[in-house]
Amino acid sequence: MPAPRYDVLGIGNAIVDVIARTDEDFLLKHGMNKGTMALIDEARASAIYEAMGPAIETSGGSVANTIVGLASLGARTAFVGKIKDDSLGRAFAHDIRAAGVAFSTRPAARGPSTARCYVLVTPDGERTMNTYLGAAQDLHPADIDAEMVAASAILYLEGYLWDPKNAKDAFIEAAKIAHAAERTVALTLSDAFCVDRWRAEFLHLMRSRTVDLIFANESELHSLYQTADFDTAVKALRADVGAAVVTRSEKGCLVIGPEGTEAVPAFPVERVVDTTGAGDLFAAGFLAGLARGADDRTCGRLGALAAAEVIQHLGARPEASLQDLARENGLTD
Amino acid sequence: MPAPRYDVLGIGNAIVDVIARTDEDFLLKHGMNKGTMALIDEARASAIYEAMGPAIETSGGSVANTIVGLASLGARTAFVGKIKDDSLGRAFAHDIRAAGVAFSTRPAARGPSTARCYVLVTPDGERTMNTYLGAAQDLHPADIDAEMVAASAILYLEGYLWDPKNAKDAFIEAAKIAHAAERTVALTLSDAFCVDRWRAEFLHLMRSRTVDLIFANESELHSLYQTADFDTAVKALRADVGAAVVTRSEKGCLVIGPEGTEAVPAFPVERVVDTTGAGDLFAAGFLAGLARGADDRTCGRLGALAAAEVIQHLGARPEASLQDLARENGLTD
Repeated sequence: MPAPRYDVLGIGNAIVDVIARTDEDFLLKHGMNKGTMALIDEARASAIYEAMGPAIETSGGSVANTIVGLASLGARTAFVGKIKDDSLGRAFAHDIRAAGVAFSTRPAARGPSTARCYVLVTPDGERTMNTYLGAAQDLHPADIDAEMVAASAILYLEGYLWDPKNAKDAFIEAAKIAHAAERTVALTLSDAFCVDRWRAEFLHLMRSRTVDLIFANESELHSLYQTADFDTAVKALRADVGAAVVTRSEKGCLVIGPEGTEAVPAFPVERVVDTTGAGDLFAAGFLAGLARGADDRTCGRLGALAAAEVIQHLGARPEASLQDLARENGLTD
Repeated sequence: MPAPRYDVLGIGNAIVDVIARTDEDFLLKHGMNKGTMALIDEARASAIYEAMGPAIETSGGSVANTIVGLASLGARTAFVGKIKDDSLGRAFAHDIRAAGVAFSTRPAARGPSTARCYVLVTPDGERTMNTYLGAAQDLHPADIDAEMVAASAILYLEGYLWDPKNAKDAFIEAAKIAHAAERTVALTLSDAFCVDRWRAEFLHLMRSRTVDLIFANESELHSLYQTADFDTAVKALRADVGAAVVTRSEKGCLVIGPEGTEAVPAFPVERVVDTTGAGDLFAAGFLAGLARGADDRTCGRLGALAAAEVIQHLGARPEASLQDLARENGLTD
């Protein structure tokens, strides 16, 4: 295979985050499950927006956040995701390109508007998300550029792609192309409720070796195997997939590979402002290490470092140069 | 006169801020005057946006920021400003109403889009602004609700209203109504270059007693009197207007009234992240004190406190409850 042109190509929902601070009562009153992502229709999107406080708008989307984090770490990256040609969509495209990511998915000219996620941040820094998928519904296999997939060392996908109706076909198509080109296919399980919606299919992706590397946090892992016992779940995960990383917030992460399991500590954080993007940026750091052949521990530490940066400010995109941070912490040359 | 229904009614340009971090070179390369506001047309707006880094969008506008700060301090507030009925305009309307401000100016159905300000924040926390006025151009005297103006204890206006073509007529009309109802009219000089564009008219507003209270920072004051000598400028200001407040960044402020001048210190700040909104929030704190009859020093300290909050995060709207902060600092009951 020729040398890859991109280190990581991500495919995911292209979403603009609408972030507001809130209190616990608001979540209760509006029937939200704290810390998770719920899909909402346009009517509920309007009702939530009407009720929520003053907001800031910033580009988001789980895989898109990861890809921007990778670019901030100096990786060569590309993204595929569906926006509409409206002002939110143009902001999304501007932000991801301004971060140095190749992004050329054709925007939808008509149909629903660019996807929005209402992110409600409670005083403890935890975020609760409500996503209106909008134009992200229209990601089709035709949006996948086969040549670009084959030219990327790692293909990174999100479980959330199972929610829009045609995106899973695009996902499978891309994974096939990647494997034909002897590339690595990685998947984040996205969210415990997303896992609950698509458990059987996610397990099939793993067991059929459609994916090579899984990113999951503890609640996603418990949801996947419907067990409250962490060790039981880890054992099942090890049997089902070639490699996996389980993130455990301030407890760090477990890197599970063919040669064994390594526990890697988190980076200390002074004050958690907003956990939005913690998992996304962890994946960014980890994949940046993987792309340049770093060992498991270095990959895990890079993930922890990027996650630590993003939870200390509002929004899921890095504010500091992650490459500079990595250098200061001896995690890159 | 009947008791006022609002403590402060603000009239200003309704603007959405598009904020990005940048470096000094970017400002030089694009011919920007650091720390000031430049008016730009649509073509330059596109060129700047194209060139600038990833951004966040948040509601802004100088007077609008002040009014939201006042609401956060528990004052009863209203705002008049022109948006278009587009997604940025709807975000502006949502954010100001969600902050508790009465806002009912009819949005423009057609014509230019909602005003945007490209705010470039350098590593020292200083911000350089480029404003595309868009729909704000269409603020007319017909947008002024005479009954609402008469029912507001303080009318607060911005020098920036001299830039859109019809807004100054709305300004004069509102000031007349306010004075007929024995209310106070306050004006911020907005920006040194704005003062340079409209020096004679601003001096006329002061000398004709169309305005009762002036807010200015040092560079605006120097620009107004075209002198580099601070004391000379202050002396001229004292002669030209009934009352004034001159803000001096970390040196605090001077409160100039009929009975004399009082210097009030600033609040210490750990780290300046983004100075956007510092003057706006100072005015919010000061006017909140004035509305409840506090002494000059308390008004100045409230201004300093609100300014200190807003410069410690990105964006020009308060993130913390200013009323709680004021209480913790013994500046309110």
